[in-house]
Amino acid sequence: MQGSGLFITIEGMDGSGKTTQVERLCARLGREGIPFLRTREPGGSAIGDAIRELLLDPHSEMTPLTEVYLYAAGRAEHVQTVIEPALRAGQVVVCDRFVEASIAYQGYGLSDAGMSPALVRAVNAHAVGQTRPHRTFVIDVPVKEAQARLARSGRSAYGGQDRIERRGSAFFERVRAGLRAIYEEDPERVVWLDGLLSADELATRIWHNLKDSLV
Amino acid sequence: MQGSGLFITIEGMDGSGKTTQVERLCARLGREGIPFLRTREPGGSAIGDAIRELLLDPHSEMTPLTEVYLYAAGRAEHVQTVIEPALRAGQVVVCDRFVEASIAYQGYGLSDAGMSPALVRAVNAHAVGQTRPHRTFVIDVPVKEAQARLARSGRSAYGGQDRIERRGSAFFERVRAGLRAIYEEDPERVVWLDGLLSADELATRIWHNLKDSLV
Repeated sequence: MQGSGLFITIEGMDGSGKTTQVERLCARLGREGIPFLRTREPGGSAIGDAIRELLLDPHSEMTPLTEVYLYAAGRAEHVQTVIEPALRAGQVVVCDRFVEASIAYQGYGLSDAGMSPALVRAVNAHAVGQTRPHRTFVIDVPVKEAQARLARSGRSAYGGQDRIERRGSAFFERVRAGLRAIYEEDPERVVWLDGLLSADELATRIWHNLKDSLV
Repeated sequence: MQGSGLFITIEGMDGSGKTTQVERLCARLGREGIPFLRTREPGGSAIGDAIRELLLDPHSEMTPLTEVYLYAAGRAEHVQTVIEPALRAGQVVVCDRFVEASIAYQGYGLSDAGMSPALVRAVNAHAVGQTRPHRTFVIDVPVKEAQARLARSGRSAYGGQDRIERRGSAFFERVRAGLRAIYEEDPERVVWLDGLLSADELATRIWHNLKDSLV
C-alpha cells in the first residue's frame, strides 16, 4: 500500500556524489518546510543494519544468489517498517539506494556469476510490493572518476573497502551499464544525471525536477 | 541442477522426534556403507549460521515478510554450497527441515499476519531452484504432546526458548495443519508419520520406505 507521500530514490556508484545530493535535497525540503524522511539501503532498521553488516563485511562469504536474497530481506523490513509508514503519513521519503541498486549491482554486475536483472526483480517482487519510487535519480560517473574520488577521500584504502567495493573495474563497468539500462527502460520515472556536473548544478536540477510535485 | 544423489528431508515441530529420526537414519546409512551428508536448516554454512542467529535470537525484531526472506537467503546458500555439491557427488543428503518448514511455519503459521503458502513458495522459488527433496517425512504430533516433551527435556524454560518457539499454541496448531496440507498436496513424495509411535518403529518405517531407492 502506498500512501500520499512521495518516494524519491537516488542511485549511483560510490563516488558518484549520490549521498551529497541526498543531503542537499533533504536540506532543501527542510528549508521549504516539507516533512521528509531520509533513509538508506542497505540498512534503515535494526535488523536491516545487522543484515548490512553481513553483506558488507569483507570476511563474509556468500554466493551471489544469497547476496540477492539478503538485500531483499533488508528491503522487505525497510519498506514495511520505515518507507510505507512515512508515505502513509504524507512524508517525502528520500532514500539513498533502493531496488534499482540491486538490479544494477547484482543483476547486471554479477551477470558473469549467473545473476540477471530478471532474477533480481523476481526475488525482490514481494519485498518491494507496490512501493515503487515515484522518481529515481541516477547520478552517472565514469568508473575511473568514481575510483579517483574515493581514493582522494581516503575511502579506497584496501583495509577500508567493504566486500562490494573490493570488486574490480569490470564489475563496476557492468554496474554503470546496468544503471543506464534501468534509465532507458523507464525514462519517464528515472532521471539520468551527469555526475561530472558540480554539486550545486546537480542539486538545482534535482530540485527543478521535483518542485512541481512538491510545492 | 540436481545430481545423482538422493535428497531426503525430515519435517516436524520441535518435540516431534524429528532430529532423533535424522540421527537414526544417518546411523543406518553409515552401517550400510552408503555415503551421506547430514545437514539442517536454518544453518548449514557460515553465513547460514549467522542468519540463523538473527532468526532465532529472541531479541530480534522483524516483520513476517523479512523472516520469510531471511530463511530463503540462508536456504539459497545452503542449496548452492552444501546440498547440490553433495548430490552431485552422489551422496544421500539428510536434511533436518527444508522449504516445507518455511511453508508450514511462515506460510500457514503466520497466515494471520498476511503470509500465505503461495507467497512463501514464490519468495523461495529461486532459492530452491530444481533442488526438490526426493522424499519428505513429516512427523506429526499433537501440539500439547510436543510441548509436554519439550518441557520434560528442559528445552521449554522461558529463557531457553528461541524467537519462533515463543509463539503461542494457536500458531503451532496452524503449523501442524500446514504440515498436513503439504502432505495431502503431494502424498507420493511426502510421507506422513505418527509421531506417537516409538522411535524404533518410526526409524523402521523410514528405512523401509527408503531402502528400495538406496540399496
